[in-house]
Amino acid sequence: MKALVLEADWKPKNGYKLSPYEEKTGKAIIGSSIWKKRELTLKEIEKPKPGKKDLLVKVENCGISEPDIHFYQTDREGYILYPGLTKFPCIIGHEFSGVVEEVGSQVNGFREGDLVTSEEIIWCGECTPCRNGYPNHCQRLEEIGFTVNGALAEWISVGSKYCWKLNEIRKSYGSKANALEAGALVEPTSVAYNGVFVRSGGFKPGDFVGVWGAGPIGLAAIALSKAAGASKIFAFETKKERRELASQMGADHVFDPLALKEDGSGPCKKVLELTNRQGISMGIETAGAPLQTIPEIEKSLAINGKIVQIGRAVQRVPMYLERYQARRAQFYGAKGHSGHGIFQSVIRLMASKKIDMRKIVTSRFYLDHAVEAIEKASKRVNGKVLVKI
Amino acid sequence: MKALVLEADWKPKNGYKLSPYEEKTGKAIIGSSIWKKRELTLKEIEKPKPGKKDLLVKVENCGISEPDIHFYQTDREGYILYPGLTKFPCIIGHEFSGVVEEVGSQVNGFREGDLVTSEEIIWCGECTPCRNGYPNHCQRLEEIGFTVNGALAEWISVGSKYCWKLNEIRKSYGSKANALEAGALVEPTSVAYNGVFVRSGGFKPGDFVGVWGAGPIGLAAIALSKAAGASKIFAFETKKERRELASQMGADHVFDPLALKEDGSGPCKKVLELTNRQGISMGIETAGAPLQTIPEIEKSLAINGKIVQIGRAVQRVPMYLERYQARRAQFYGAKGHSGHGIFQSVIRLMASKKIDMRKIVTSRFYLDHAVEAIEKASKRVNGKVLVKI
Repeated sequence: MKALVLEADWKPKNGYKLSPYEEKTGKAIIGSSIWKKRELTLKEIEKPKPGKKDLLVKVENCGISEPDIHFYQTDREGYILYPGLTKFPCIIGHEFSGVVEEVGSQVNGFREGDLVTSEEIIWCGECTPCRNGYPNHCQRLEEIGFTVNGALAEWISVGSKYCWKLNEIRKSYGSKANALEAGALVEPTSVAYNGVFVRSGGFKPGDFVGVWGAGPIGLAAIALSKAAGASKIFAFETKKERRELASQMGADHVFDPLALKEDGSGPCKKVLELTNRQGISMGIETAGAPLQTIPEIEKSLAINGKIVQIGRAVQRVPMYLERYQARRAQFYGAKGHSGHGIFQSVIRLMASKKIDMRKIVTSRFYLDHAVEAIEKASKRVNGKVLVKI
Repeated sequence: MKALVLEADWKPKNGYKLSPYEEKTGKAIIGSSIWKKRELTLKEIEKPKPGKKDLLVKVENCGISEPDIHFYQTDREGYILYPGLTKFPCIIGHEFSGVVEEVGSQVNGFREGDLVTSEEIIWCGECTPCRNGYPNHCQRLEEIGFTVNGALAEWISVGSKYCWKLNEIRKSYGSKANALEAGALVEPTSVAYNGVFVRSGGFKPGDFVGVWGAGPIGLAAIALSKAAGASKIFAFETKKERRELASQMGADHVFDPLALKEDGSGPCKKVLELTNRQGISMGIETAGAPLQTIPEIEKSLAINGKIVQIGRAVQRVPMYLERYQARRAQFYGAKGHSGHGIFQSVIRLMASKKIDMRKIVTSRFYLDHAVEAIEKASKRVNGKVLVKI
């Protein structure tokens, strides 16, 4: 079968001390400090054989996500930019949907022809965090498209316990093709859902909400906030095209934070102005630029307001703690999308048409042009780039 | 009657711009930038007359707290150190207990002879935060001993809706004097309760807990954590005498963080060592030294761990946000003690002897020596300093 394979050299940077885990497993914890000279090549490799508890899925769509971009982009020394868990060579791609083609002998609840998507996090279910109900913090984590073969390929074999049926979406959409496009967006939408509703416990209908960054995760956060009854949604995004998408997904007030900065005001000033100085009950950080965004969000919070950090934030950020005391505020870090009924809820929201994530798809490529798709996504100008397999 | 009155000159520091609120009300928002040449004098002033909704309380005990110390201590230019809401002249003191001597004509539920304590926060009950259930964030706040006359005096007149009866404590203690000492500790214990159980939602029985700082609030946090079923409590405190009190209040492992630092380890290393690397479910900051403590607490957290900042933190603190994502962690700012059933719960915990806060009283002075009491407390070496009226 055809598959987009990432190969790279295991060359720890000068001064990077490999952990015993990294030495034993060949998995990099900080990929950007280890993987050099990456090559992304469309290869002909053997079609996977599903194990007893797996589904063999004929992939139909696979979205390009931030980590894929950070695999593609390299630093001056030629190291990948992605700073997380990785083991190469590996087929990349993890936001996918497809059709079940073969069902392992010990699988329950799935059958040939089911439309499915899958979690990206291969949680073990046996370590302490998993047993306590925190699959996103599994200690023996594998990740589809990072450490095990992903979905920029014609077929993928996945443990059935990570798969979720899209049949309800198909029924309401009336079209298999549309359901499969929406299906490929369940994973990134679930990342936003986890941050907004699970990690930080959500907001109340009627509350004001702010979203910083309107990439795919930010756009999902806007759609979800709208569905959950936010009475005003503010979106801050530097790219014009993404600001337009933010409006389409339901943001009521959309601003370019750089333009606000130039005219001497800032997101905070706008938020306070447009909420009669009451502020937002939730500030959602999806920009991955907390040094710029967090100070503005802190000043925009209503009493009892929450900040949830979904965008990657591998850095120290000076937070003004008295603000959290005076405003009764709280800060949550969010990671992952598994567990807590998240995939199920996102699929229901799509099936009931409370959210339509297909609106964020702005480009489509065929698998033969997958590298171009990543290149396109790396401009970070538009919405989601999908690869049709 | 005799009362300890704080007088000071209204002299805004060079460069401090008075807000319209400050100009209109004569109340300083940042007291340390406005009040100069403070004098603390025991004066003979008129006994207060209770209004229709007030109780006239014969004060029996009044604890010395951090703000009282910051009124006493001044900077090089002679300004008070306390950086909060203040209006002078004012009788100071707010952690008190006493006996009801007179009951206003429109008061319900109190009678002469009741033993009472009182909240320090005079919340209006009518502004938006109050109406939404957040009295600690009242927009028309007055504070006993800060902007209205306090309890380092023979009598105080207080709105009955801020008062709580100590009668149950008296019953179980069998002694009026003991009940009145415990009663003066309800307010600081409620500050800890608000942070640990209300603002951050508490921890589960069996969880590991860490307390940074073992002044009166930290000692209360230890006692409360013990009562709530923490299976191990770690305390970090630089003063030997306070470490001993921490043990007495229920801490299982007590360390001097400075000594740990010298031997190359740190609180975090100790916590991980003694929890089989699982970490604490809650880190309670009462030291008011977040630049030193927060980095250690962040590294000590269990998955799903919480940090609650109770100690004053009028500063920017570099927080490592990825930690909050990777550990499923959250940060809460805490302020105040009113509402949410807090005083009621603290009084019940005392009456049922689940906590005995009297153990933290290490010095007792008479009102005539109130300034000495503050001086003693300002060493921050021992537990609570009480003034007997």
